[in-house]
Amino acid sequence: MQLGIIGLGRMGGNIARRLMLNGHTTVVYDRNEAFVKGLSEEGATGVADLKALVAGLQKPRAVWVMLPAGDPTENTINELSDLLDHGDVIIDGGNTNYKDDVRRAKALSEKGLHYVDVGTSGGVWGLERGYCMMIGGDAATVQRLDPIFASLAPGLGSIPRTKDRSAAADPRAEHGYIHAGPAGSGHFVKMIHNGIEYGMMQAFAEGFDILKTKNSENLAEDQRFDLNVADIAEVWRRGSVVSSWLLDLTADALATDPKLEGYSGSVADSGEGRWTIEAAMEQAVPVPVLSTSLFARFRSRQQSTYGDKMLSAMRFGFGGHVETSKK
Amino acid sequence: MQLGIIGLGRMGGNIARRLMLNGHTTVVYDRNEAFVKGLSEEGATGVADLKALVAGLQKPRAVWVMLPAGDPTENTINELSDLLDHGDVIIDGGNTNYKDDVRRAKALSEKGLHYVDVGTSGGVWGLERGYCMMIGGDAATVQRLDPIFASLAPGLGSIPRTKDRSAAADPRAEHGYIHAGPAGSGHFVKMIHNGIEYGMMQAFAEGFDILKTKNSENLAEDQRFDLNVADIAEVWRRGSVVSSWLLDLTADALATDPKLEGYSGSVADSGEGRWTIEAAMEQAVPVPVLSTSLFARFRSRQQSTYGDKMLSAMRFGFGGHVETSKK
Amino acid sequence: MQLGIIGLGRMGGNIARRLMLNGHTTVVYDRNEAFVKGLSEEGATGVADLKALVAGLQKPRAVWVMLPAGDPTENTINELSDLLDHGDVIIDGGNTNYKDDVRRAKALSEKGLHYVDVGTSGGVWGLERGYCMMIGGDAATVQRLDPIFASLAPGLGSIPRTKDRSAAADPRAEHGYIHAGPAGSGHFVKMIHNGIEYGMMQAFAEGFDILKTKNSENLAEDQRFDLNVADIAEVWRRGSVVSSWLLDLTADALATDPKLEGYSGSVADSGEGRWTIEAAMEQAVPVPVLSTSLFARFRSRQQSTYGDKMLSAMRFGFGGHVETSKK
Amino acid sequence: MQLGIIGLGRMGGNIARRLMLNGHTTVVYDRNEAFVKGLSEEGATGVADLKALVAGLQKPRAVWVMLPAGDPTENTINELSDLLDHGDVIIDGGNTNYKDDVRRAKALSEKGLHYVDVGTSGGVWGLERGYCMMIGGDAATVQRLDPIFASLAPGLGSIPRTKDRSAAADPRAEHGYIHAGPAGSGHFVKMIHNGIEYGMMQAFAEGFDILKTKNSENLAEDQRFDLNVADIAEVWRRGSVVSSWLLDLTADALATDPKLEGYSGSVADSGEGRWTIEAAMEQAVPVPVLSTSLFARFRSRQQSTYGDKMLSAMRFGFGGHVETSKK
Repeated sequence: MQLGIIGLGRMGGNIARRLMLNGHTTVVYDRNEAFVKGLSEEGATGVADLKALVAGLQKPRAVWVMLPAGDPTENTINELSDLLDHGDVIIDGGNTNYKDDVRRAKALSEKGLHYVDVGTSGGVWGLERGYCMMIGGDAATVQRLDPIFASLAPGLGSIPRTKDRSAAADPRAEHGYIHAGPAGSGHFVKMIHNGIEYGMMQAFAEGFDILKTKNSENLAEDQRFDLNVADIAEVWRRGSVVSSWLLDLTADALATDPKLEGYSGSVADSGEGRWTIEAAMEQAVPVPVLSTSLFARFRSRQQSTYGDKMLSAMRFGFGGHVETSKK
Repeated sequence: MQLGIIGLGRMGGNIARRLMLNGHTTVVYDRNEAFVKGLSEEGATGVADLKALVAGLQKPRAVWVMLPAGDPTENTINELSDLLDHGDVIIDGGNTNYKDDVRRAKALSEKGLHYVDVGTSGGVWGLERGYCMMIGGDAATVQRLDPIFASLAPGLGSIPRTKDRSAAADPRAEHGYIHAGPAGSGHFVKMIHNGIEYGMMQAFAEGFDILKTKNSENLAEDQRFDLNVADIAEVWRRGSVVSSWLLDLTADALATDPKLEGYSGSVADSGEGRWTIEAAMEQAVPVPVLSTSLFARFRSRQQSTYGDKMLSAMRFGFGGHVETSKK
Repeated sequence: MQLGIIGLGRMGGNIARRLMLNGHTTVVYDRNEAFVKGLSEEGATGVADLKALVAGLQKPRAVWVMLPAGDPTENTINELSDLLDHGDVIIDGGNTNYKDDVRRAKALSEKGLHYVDVGTSGGVWGLERGYCMMIGGDAATVQRLDPIFASLAPGLGSIPRTKDRSAAADPRAEHGYIHAGPAGSGHFVKMIHNGIEYGMMQAFAEGFDILKTKNSENLAEDQRFDLNVADIAEVWRRGSVVSSWLLDLTADALATDPKLEGYSGSVADSGEGRWTIEAAMEQAVPVPVLSTSLFARFRSRQQSTYGDKMLSAMRFGFGGHVETSKK
Repeated sequence: MQLGIIGLGRMGGNIARRLMLNGHTTVVYDRNEAFVKGLSEEGATGVADLKALVAGLQKPRAVWVMLPAGDPTENTINELSDLLDHGDVIIDGGNTNYKDDVRRAKALSEKGLHYVDVGTSGGVWGLERGYCMMIGGDAATVQRLDPIFASLAPGLGSIPRTKDRSAAADPRAEHGYIHAGPAGSGHFVKMIHNGIEYGMMQAFAEGFDILKTKNSENLAEDQRFDLNVADIAEVWRRGSVVSSWLLDLTADALATDPKLEGYSGSVADSGEGRWTIEAAMEQAVPVPVLSTSLFARFRSRQQSTYGDKMLSAMRFGFGGHVETSKK
């Protein structure tokens, strides 16, 4: 089928490519003309503005917005909503806060427009492997877009099937996409996915930190092991309980740079990690691991904190203790 | 080759079976005669005591002890050390604290005996999939036992190979076992593996808790989503960043019991989780996620804590606040 | 001076009393007529509705709203804003989210009304000891209300003065109240105060839990101490680093009920704890202790969590482990 | 009465001074001759070695060892145990691990010597205010030493008495010292005290960090407050729930250096914090706040961790994300 795509960065561009590989046609726009030109050469219909994009699509239109969450997405959807007609659908495939989805879906529905939010996982690997998608919106619209989702998803592939999965269960899940519920639920599920991801990453990070420092000079010599972290990551990929895609990536990284000297260790976080904590607080769910993982990232970006200095100041106050040096 | 095996529970019995399937011969003992009888019928040489086990093995002998860590393992190894001869090797495949390995290896070496510690992951799946093994001990002894380890390990299988892995790297890691270093290092690496496992499990647990309670009556009606957690686990197995063996198991469990009503949520912990925190403290490594995951298990086994009561008491003291009910 | 007070619960009623004890006059309202009647008998001018309250005050009026945060406060302030005149001031002494203060102050200022937010600590002890107050609003208005704040505050009392405190520093802080900054800043500082309080309480709770369970039957007999927690709390009040008001309250509680059998341990939380974490996330400040303290309260209110059940399910999946019992 | 004191550093020297001020006599030794000379000039009997110290004391002797925990204390006690006679008592006033106390008390008792462990809080303030002491040992010996403890303790002072404290309760607690139980229990209680202290300090540190960064340039201008942290610490000392000695010290520090520019924020930890976590693990007590506080100190001493670099490496692997800069 035909899809309009706005935003041709790494994610949007590859989504267009994977769709075209699967026989769909795309009308594409990006404010960066070079991106439009590049995809046009790969078979897309490139356009110069939103108006042209809308004009290039047959009704009922479907437009996939793949832009940074917040103002860029919001403004584009607002502009689109004035150009589209009754029955058209706007798909937000970015990392939008699900509360914005709920609000938008309601506002757009008053104009007769449909709104679908798609949480999309897969990163730079999606073009090749397919995208894991969590979709929110009304059932009929999600169904209408099924050819798009089916093509973007990884499909059954070679992954072993879950035992005891009911024959009555939604078959889409096994193909790598689900209709999670009404508008907002797609991004909600993706948000929690990212929250979990933070926790898993931090678990690996802490564990490998212990492995690496087991050879530290601070330990007595007979307490040290000089462990090969690249081999450890590799062996854990083979039959251990922690085998996972994140471990595969870790093994990749350690194979070429076991000391990870190419990284400073300043770790960014995106909105989903924070929103996950907010959701947990709204629901009174204890999430000490997800929150601690987020805070480890905050901490990683600072040389020292005001809080740490206050600890030193208190220690000096009650005991005259002077600071140790950074090791 | 020939291997003596002591302890024929779920792990030890399956290790014997996998070895026999691969053409090795085993001499087996368990204090439970039925276990010995059962394996004898599958081709093993069953014996009635340690003395007979030692007598049934050719020098240099290799005896794999697969017993609960602590006294059962310690006592058995002590007894064995009096029966074995110079050049024989004792393998501890259980969940021993690595500090005990270091101590034992030293003591046994004074008697001319070798000691190898094997951290073994794979659980009930090992017979079929193979065991992921982290091995500590002197290189020559580990090399001598290679036919055993090669047969127990999963092998290359269908798992994609790590890109950029050096041709010079130890090929054993890709086959699912490593020689981690001197005695103790095998169990040390396995210990950290389990510590990481706790963290990953807790990350999933917290995330799914938010998903499940998003339909709670405590939320305003327009804030709720009635999410299908079985489908969510399934879809995440397909191309998402959190895909992992633990997620596969989660999908299995949710496919038949999405409310997890078959579980009370009282979660045990084994020594490795605690020892991981001890190691982190010895090395001054911050491990807030691994420790928090352990503490969540402690908490899961209590209806209420003395500490919680103290919070209530303080709140009553400064504000006259009375307790809320358990929801 | 003269003050209108709306909301005569434990806090509002005692604020009126402390003001009258210090020679101020109050015009008071509560939807509960008994509260109004009671305070009238103590010297206040009781009124039957907001209109009468406004009519009973001289311009420029000052009205202190002491109601639950959220709708009760919001609705009352909205109603008041229609009754008051240019130059009057509304004081919100409750536990309002500071973002609501910022919004309200702006809206009220467009009507020529002043808005002051007062974070008030002191609980049931305030009548006797005075209230510690953190005040937000424009400087002139805060100054105009100084007689009120000075009377409500504890004053210098017998608390030793901070050494090296600059003579140029604002003298109000030493008397137990500060002008923190513009509208919202009072409640912001009080919010952080409560966040810290959660952390301190949890620190005591965890420590006393270890003391109490040091006599547990799960420990080997020669590892146990039968400690007197009431005596421990008492002795720590005398020269130790953890001496604090919270410890005083703990000592009070333990003096009569050392096993804390009067409490179930189901611990409520109020908005401030959650908002503190939100603020930390907005500012990218790592707050693992404050968040963990909040989550311990969430956990205290549940018998078991869905997350814990999931841990059990995963353990069963990979190892066939069956659950331990709740102890 | 008469007391031998070994170790005349800040703590040991002031203990000697406070005892002499209260009419006791002391025989003192330190390997630093200047310390011995200094105290001799203040009235103590200085000696040149342990032998002379023992010779200078009347039977039954009492010797207070005030040295760093570990080898210095262990070696000194071993040496003393050969010099002392049946019925003499060794007091360890340092920061010894309580498990060492249990072991030592047993060994010394076989020689007819008594052993008393004293957890001592009060830091540099003890000379003036008195020391809060938690004492382990057999009751008769602790009773025999009561004149020493009574003189070192703060006494009732001006601290308000706990309401409802039973008349039958041990009066020593109100004077600032307790007999906690058998040998080891004194240091056990002190250990938990320090664990709690870490948690309280971290709670303050995190809270003030949010206050301080509320004026950060990363926030939108209308979201900022420029708060006076010195005034906030001061006002909280006056009637708020977080009033405490640690807050007093914080107020002291902030009064002269509100930006805490004199500190780098590299925070040491001593054994007690770590041993508290070990005890919690032995007793299966969840202590997420105490552990997290310890780990924050570990983290404070590093510019970046291997774990953080691994997070960056994983992020790069799955999404091509490049690191942010340290802010």
